[in-house]
Amino acid sequence: MIRIAVELPGHAAYPVVVGAGALGETAQHTGERPFGIVDLPVYEAHGALTAPLCSLVVAPSGEEAKDWETLELILSCMAHEKLDRASVALAFGGGSTLDVAGLAASLYMRGIRVVYCPTTLLAMVDASVGGKTAINLAEGKNLVGTFHQPSAVLADTRTLATLPDAEWRSGLGEVVKAALVEGEELLALVERSASALAARDLAAVEPVIAACVRSKARIVASDERESGPRKALNLGHTFAHALEKVAGFGAIPHGVAVACGLALALEASERAGLLEDASLRARVDSTLRTLQLPRSLGELRRTHGALPARELLAAMRHDKKARSGVPGFVLPRRAGALELSVALDERAVLELLA
Amino acid sequence: MIRIAVELPGHAAYPVVVGAGALGETAQHTGERPFGIVDLPVYEAHGALTAPLCSLVVAPSGEEAKDWETLELILSCMAHEKLDRASVALAFGGGSTLDVAGLAASLYMRGIRVVYCPTTLLAMVDASVGGKTAINLAEGKNLVGTFHQPSAVLADTRTLATLPDAEWRSGLGEVVKAALVEGEELLALVERSASALAARDLAAVEPVIAACVRSKARIVASDERESGPRKALNLGHTFAHALEKVAGFGAIPHGVAVACGLALALEASERAGLLEDASLRARVDSTLRTLQLPRSLGELRRTHGALPARELLAAMRHDKKARSGVPGFVLPRRAGALELSVALDERAVLELLA
Repeated sequence: MIRIAVELPGHAAYPVVVGAGALGETAQHTGERPFGIVDLPVYEAHGALTAPLCSLVVAPSGEEAKDWETLELILSCMAHEKLDRASVALAFGGGSTLDVAGLAASLYMRGIRVVYCPTTLLAMVDASVGGKTAINLAEGKNLVGTFHQPSAVLADTRTLATLPDAEWRSGLGEVVKAALVEGEELLALVERSASALAARDLAAVEPVIAACVRSKARIVASDERESGPRKALNLGHTFAHALEKVAGFGAIPHGVAVACGLALALEASERAGLLEDASLRARVDSTLRTLQLPRSLGELRRTHGALPARELLAAMRHDKKARSGVPGFVLPRRAGALELSVALDERAVLELLA
Repeated sequence: MIRIAVELPGHAAYPVVVGAGALGETAQHTGERPFGIVDLPVYEAHGALTAPLCSLVVAPSGEEAKDWETLELILSCMAHEKLDRASVALAFGGGSTLDVAGLAASLYMRGIRVVYCPTTLLAMVDASVGGKTAINLAEGKNLVGTFHQPSAVLADTRTLATLPDAEWRSGLGEVVKAALVEGEELLALVERSASALAARDLAAVEPVIAACVRSKARIVASDERESGPRKALNLGHTFAHALEKVAGFGAIPHGVAVACGLALALEASERAGLLEDASLRARVDSTLRTLQLPRSLGELRRTHGALPARELLAAMRHDKKARSGVPGFVLPRRAGALELSVALDERAVLELLA
């Protein structure tokens, strides 16, 4: 079991516990009878893992959960169970479930504690750390949300055994992003572990999850509200959010879109003359191939339809990072060194997406 | 024009401007073409006061506005107008309108700026300062919300000219609460001004509004998230929220319920042997009478029906300040000196409400 303390200025430090059996610590972090929120696949696969609860809301899984209906359902159940400001919510599931459960916890009585039990690789390496919560609007992903830090994260790698292959690969997309953001050491670990990660070796994935969490915790601690350094975590995401929106939310798994977004960001960086490490594109390309992730927009179009360049551009203009309709791109110079807000002109973006 | 700077740790200071013509400063606080939210009576009475807007959402007024439907409507319109993180929302209206507009602003892209233009006395003295936002659930008032400070508050006393008498009296209820919380100096000012306030003298109300805002700003600055001293602002509110819930949200104007709550809190304090200033009950009783506010539960029952004691108690058990079903009461020792969390036993509460 690996323990990481996340320390954010102005918040109590909270632990992230990574390893087989982490869920055994649930009661010590929630106290008696927390209010449970779980997504359907997790409920079906791991119902018995859950601690005694005061109530359990079963939510849809994936992007479907991130809507007004699920948010209202959770909040109405919280009120019906007469939770008070000392109550604790316990969320089991993938990133979408944690996002909507965390939003509900942040809103109920203006904020109660929430413990996250991520059950997907993507949620373990990314969604469960950092305190962003959200639901989607028809106009775009994550347009409604809050910053609300969990009081503990229990990443039990045993829950990954039942994860569908597509979800596993999606998590690996965020792993590669974390490596590019963090730098050479994590990138080398991911390259060395790539075959084992592709083969779903749980012993190999544990230190990788822990390294991703440490990296993200460090970045978030320096900039909780994303006014500066935290923007680095959006590497590949301006592209990814546009791909997900144009394909229809849920059609492309988030981390798969991120993988493609990383390839596009590297290409954009090279075209813009920003890329300093000439070998980086080839290394990431090779790693994405080993991990069975898309390495180009062309590859994604073969599996997910046309994804027209103009529609992608229009989606980017309304990205949360855009200002007055001009998207800001995070582009890598080398692993661990990123430009945080590059305004590419429209023609350059369209050529890249052609 | 009176200017007050609200300085909260960790936030940029923001101005509260009180006086006839304060709305003339709108553009300097919002920049060009803010996103407007206005309630219907204000829209009808003051449409021409508003600055050029990128869009205007007209919301229901009063507690009706504080629901999921209005919140979703505002957020969908924000997304439809493609607001970005640099956009500014401008909310005109009573406390309910500011509450739901502030909640929407705090959630859109995890928080954009909002400028409040309170148009009721209650919103000027209370709702527009402090950064609490909320909507109601069927189970209770303000159960869903956030803390989100406005970037400016423009309290234009000219907008009070069209306020219905019942709304004016409601605001005076919160004025008396503010005086009891703040201490002798403000209480004496309110006593001296009571006849002029009852007669809706706008010159007399301006310094009273400013004093209430200064008092609240000082308290909120010491405890934004209500872990301690800010609880004082809930004086009378455990009773008031229960009265409003049992009567049906909207039936009793909030400040009218607070006035009755103040009388009940003073009586409870005396019965519990906590009241040190023997003259305080009579002084507050006399002030409430001058202001045409209810001075007892009996008086409120004559105008608003049975309000059964057991139903009121049940509502208090689920108050946001309750812990494990035990309500915590704020009780005055004297003006400016309050007990912040008194657990009264059930029988004592029922006797008080009999």
